[in-house]
Amino acid sequence: MTIVRIALCQINPTVGALVGNTDRIIEVLAEAESAGAHLAVFGELALCGYPPEDLVLKRSFVADCEAQLQRLAAAAGSCGAVVGLPTVSADGSLRNTAAICRHGRVEYRYDKQELPTYGPFDEDRWFRPGQVDQPLFDLDGIDLDGIAVGVSVCEDIWIADGPVFRQGQSGARLLVNINASPYHHDKLDHREEMLRERSIAAGAPIVYVNQVGGQDELVFDGGSFVVGDDGELICRFPQFVEHVELVDIDLDGASQKADLIAPPLDDIAEIWHALVMGTRDYVHKNGFSDVVIGLSGGVDSSIVAAIAVDAFGPEHVHGVLMPSRFSSDHSISDAVRLAETLGIDHRTIPIEPGHLALETMLAESFAGRAHDLTEENLQSRIRGITLMALSNKFGWMVLTTGNKSESAVGYSTLYGDTAGAIAVIKDVYKTHIYRLCRWRNSRAGREIIPESVLTKAPSAELRPDQRDDQSLPPYDVLDAILYAYIEGDRTLADLIGEGYDPETVERICRLVDISEYKRRQSPFGLRVSSKSFGKDRRIPMTNRYR
Amino acid sequence: MTIVRIALCQINPTVGALVGNTDRIIEVLAEAESAGAHLAVFGELALCGYPPEDLVLKRSFVADCEAQLQRLAAAAGSCGAVVGLPTVSADGSLRNTAAICRHGRVEYRYDKQELPTYGPFDEDRWFRPGQVDQPLFDLDGIDLDGIAVGVSVCEDIWIADGPVFRQGQSGARLLVNINASPYHHDKLDHREEMLRERSIAAGAPIVYVNQVGGQDELVFDGGSFVVGDDGELICRFPQFVEHVELVDIDLDGASQKADLIAPPLDDIAEIWHALVMGTRDYVHKNGFSDVVIGLSGGVDSSIVAAIAVDAFGPEHVHGVLMPSRFSSDHSISDAVRLAETLGIDHRTIPIEPGHLALETMLAESFAGRAHDLTEENLQSRIRGITLMALSNKFGWMVLTTGNKSESAVGYSTLYGDTAGAIAVIKDVYKTHIYRLCRWRNSRAGREIIPESVLTKAPSAELRPDQRDDQSLPPYDVLDAILYAYIEGDRTLADLIGEGYDPETVERICRLVDISEYKRRQSPFGLRVSSKSFGKDRRIPMTNRYR
Repeated sequence: MTIVRIALCQINPTVGALVGNTDRIIEVLAEAESAGAHLAVFGELALCGYPPEDLVLKRSFVADCEAQLQRLAAAAGSCGAVVGLPTVSADGSLRNTAAICRHGRVEYRYDKQELPTYGPFDEDRWFRPGQVDQPLFDLDGIDLDGIAVGVSVCEDIWIADGPVFRQGQSGARLLVNINASPYHHDKLDHREEMLRERSIAAGAPIVYVNQVGGQDELVFDGGSFVVGDDGELICRFPQFVEHVELVDIDLDGASQKADLIAPPLDDIAEIWHALVMGTRDYVHKNGFSDVVIGLSGGVDSSIVAAIAVDAFGPEHVHGVLMPSRFSSDHSISDAVRLAETLGIDHRTIPIEPGHLALETMLAESFAGRAHDLTEENLQSRIRGITLMALSNKFGWMVLTTGNKSESAVGYSTLYGDTAGAIAVIKDVYKTHIYRLCRWRNSRAGREIIPESVLTKAPSAELRPDQRDDQSLPPYDVLDAILYAYIEGDRTLADLIGEGYDPETVERICRLVDISEYKRRQSPFGLRVSSKSFGKDRRIPMTNRYR
Repeated sequence: MTIVRIALCQINPTVGALVGNTDRIIEVLAEAESAGAHLAVFGELALCGYPPEDLVLKRSFVADCEAQLQRLAAAAGSCGAVVGLPTVSADGSLRNTAAICRHGRVEYRYDKQELPTYGPFDEDRWFRPGQVDQPLFDLDGIDLDGIAVGVSVCEDIWIADGPVFRQGQSGARLLVNINASPYHHDKLDHREEMLRERSIAAGAPIVYVNQVGGQDELVFDGGSFVVGDDGELICRFPQFVEHVELVDIDLDGASQKADLIAPPLDDIAEIWHALVMGTRDYVHKNGFSDVVIGLSGGVDSSIVAAIAVDAFGPEHVHGVLMPSRFSSDHSISDAVRLAETLGIDHRTIPIEPGHLALETMLAESFAGRAHDLTEENLQSRIRGITLMALSNKFGWMVLTTGNKSESAVGYSTLYGDTAGAIAVIKDVYKTHIYRLCRWRNSRAGREIIPESVLTKAPSAELRPDQRDDQSLPPYDVLDAILYAYIEGDRTLADLIGEGYDPETVERICRLVDISEYKRRQSPFGLRVSSKSFGKDRRIPMTNRYR
C-alpha cells in the first residue's frame, strides 16, 4: 500500500485580490497540513483569480503574484501547496504556471502547454506555452518514498495524446490537474467521461481540482473529483460551493470509493445554482449587498427576483412596480403577489408624470408624426431612469430581466429595460425560463413564482393589447431557430435547407444580426450555455453578411 | 530593364458584403488589366472585409467567400488579382489566405504564417498558421519571363527574420505584402521605417497595400506604398481615401521615384481624418445618413459636431440644446453660435418638465435624503432619453461626446451622456481635443469652434457653479497620469515611484479601475491610440487589484 493523502481545495478566489487569495490559501494549507496531507491542491491561477485578463500585462502585477507565492512558500511545511499563478519565464514571456510550495520554498514549477484560444478563452493573448519535456515532481515524505507526480493545468488534460498522457508514459504515478473550467450546461458529464479515459490511458489516478465562484460573466462550478487509474470515480465534490476535503489514494491498490460522491445536479438545478452564484459573486465581490428589480408581473422579472432572493435573502432584494397607462390590472396584482410570496420590499412608482412630461418636451419635434416604437421606448427608458435613480441613491445594483430569446432578436430597449449591472438570464432561452420556474416552485413545494404568471400570454404592455407572439413565432419555434443560428453557427441558407419556413427564418436571423449593437451596450449576462452573447460570440456590429 | 507594372488597389471593403466587395474588386481589376498591369494588389481579407471576427466560424461564410473567389477568378485575365480571404485547409482548419486569380482560375494561394494575437488582434482564435516552406509565385506575361514573387500577409512582414526575409533568401525578386493594418497615432513612421529595413534585408522591392476605411472601432488609414530594394520610397498613397494607381517597378535598375509621393499627414491632421472617416463609415455602412448630437456649448460636443459636419455635410447633422435649470447663458449662446457657424439644423428642448416630473416620481422614495450624484445623473439621463427619442423617430444616429480623459475616470452618466451609437472622441485625451479644435480652426482660416468654447473652464453644469477641475487635477496632469497608467500599463506603485503625488495618483487610478463597468456598456469609440478602451484593453470588471 502506498497511500497519498491529498487535500482537494475547491475555493472561490477573487480576481486581483492577491493578498486576500493568498491569505485564504495559507489558511487552507495549514488545515491540510495538520490533517496529514501530502499535497493541498488549489485551482488554476488561484493566487490571482481567473481570468485576470490584461492585468497580467502589467509587469508589476506578475511581480506582485510572485511575491505572494514567496509568502505562501514561507508558510508551507511538509504539505506541498499546488497553486496556479502567472509567472515570467527566462525569455521574458508570460507563463500560466502551477507551482508547488513546500518546506519553506518553491520546490517546483510547471508551465501550461495547451493554451485555449476559443470560446470565452484568450490565453494566447497573454501566455506562451510551456516546454513539452518538463520534469515530473518528486513527492516524498516521512511515510513516502519518492513518487513521480505529473502536474498539469486545465486544457493540458483535454488533449488525448497531450501533456498528461505523456506524463503517464514518463512514469507518473499520480496526476494532478488544476483548473479554472467555466461551467456551461451539459459540461460536467463530458468532463468526467474525458477524465476517466485519460486516467486509463495514462495509467495513473487523476486529481482534478476546479475553481468555484463567479467572475463577471463566467461561473465556475467546482465539482472537483478524483478518478482511479482504472477510470473509476473515487470522489466527487458538490458543485457551486466552496469545499475542502482530504482524499486518500492507494497508488498500489484498486480504487476505493471515498465517502464523498456528491450526486451531480440535474440540468435545470445546475443552471439555477449557476445563476444564483454568478449573481451573488458579482454583487458581493464588487462591494454591494442589495439589488433592485423592476417587477412587471411577467415571468422574466419574476424569475430574476426569485434568483436574487436565493442569492441574497429577501431582506436585500427590492422590487419596484412602474405601471404605465397601458399596464393591465393583472400585471400589477401578479407583481404584488410575487413580492409578497418572496417577502421582499416593494414599492409602486407610476411612470405617468415622466411619460407625459417627455411627450410634452418632444411634442413640437414630433408634430404630425405617427406613434411608433419611439413612444414604446420612451416608457421603457423612464423605467430605466427610475431604477437607476434608486440604485444611485441607495447603492442597490440593478438586475435586468431580459432573456436570451429577447436579447437575440433585440426585443428590448437600450437604456430602458437593459439598464442595469447584470443581465441575470441573458443566456437562458425563454422556453428554459418556464422550466426553471416550475423546478423552483416544485423544489419549494409551493408557488414561489405565481402560477398565473406562468400561464398568461407574455406582453411588454407598451401599447394597448400588445402580445409578444404577435410579432414573433411561438417561443418553442423561435428558440429552436435561434439555437441553430447562434449555438450551431448555421446560416440562413442552412436553416432553410433544413426545412424551416424561409420567411420566418429570414426575419429572425436578420433581427439577430441587426441587434448586435444593442447587445454590445447591454450589461453582461451570466454564461450558462456553450455560446453566450459575450466572449463566446464575437460578431462585428457592421456586418452585411446575411 | 525588367519592368513590372503593379496596380496598388487601396479600397474600402465592408465586412460581410461578400458580393459587393467582389464586384468592386472585379471592377478595379478590369481597369488595371486594361492599363497593362501585371498584378492588381488588394488588401488582407479584402473579399470579406477585415476583421470578420466570428463570422469565419460559420462554415457557410467561408464557403461563400470561396464561391466569390471563383467568380473573381472567372473574371480575371492576364492581370493577376492578389486578394485576401479566409479559406479552409485540407485538415479542416481555417487560414488567412492571399490568393492570386489569373487566366480564369485561382493560380496560387499563400497562407499567413504570423497570426497577431495582441492589442486589438485575435487571429489565433480563428486561424492556424500557414506552413513555413510555401513556394513563391511565378509571375510571367507577354513581356515578362518568370519572376519569383513572394506574397505575404500583414504581420508576416513585421518579423525581422520571418517569412518575408526567407522569401528574399529563396530568390524572390518582388515582395507583395497585403494588409489590413489599423491606424493608430504615430504608426505610419514606424511602418515605413520597418519596411525599408525589410526590403534591404530581403534584397527586393516591397509592394505594401493597406485597406482603407472604418470597421466598428478600427480605422484603416491606407497609406499604401512601394519601397525599392535599396529601401528608397518609390511611391506613397494618400491616407484615409480610396486610391488605385499603377506603379512601374524596374527589377533590374535603381529605384525611381514615381510621381505620387503623398506627404504624410501631421499628427493632429491624421487623428482628425481618422475620426471623420471612422464616423462616416460606421454610419453609412450601417445604412444611416444623418446624426444627432446634444450641444452643451462645451468643447467636446463642439468638436464632435465639427467632425460630423466634415463627415456628412451640415445638412445631415442635427444639434439639440437641452438646457436645465443649471445651464448658464454662455453655454446656450456658445452652442447656438457653433450650430450657426457649422450651418446645421438645431433645436432647443429644455429638460425642466422631465426633470421636475422625475423628481416628483421619486420624491416619496427620496424623502429625507440629501441631494447627491443621483440628481445630477437624472438630468443627464433625461437628455439621453430625449436624444434617443429623436433618433428613434427620425432615424438619426446619436453621436456621444465623452473624451478619453472622462471615459477613463468615469466622469459620465451611464444611459445619460453615454447613450448613443458611436463615442467619436472616446480615444482622444482632453488635452488633444483642444489641439484638434485649434488645428481645425486654423485649417479653415476662421472660427469653426468658437474661441469662447476653447477658453472657458469646462463644466458639466449639473449643479450650480460646478467646474470639472474642482474634482480632478488640471487636464495636463490628469492626462499624463492616465497615459502612464493606461497606455503604459504602469501600476499605482510605479507612478508614485516616478514622483507623482501619491494621493492624486491613488484617486485617479482607483477611478479608472472602478469605471470599467461603465466603459463596458458605453458605445464603442474610434481607435486612434495604441491602446483604446476597447479590444486593446481587456480588464475584468470584478478586479480588486490596485
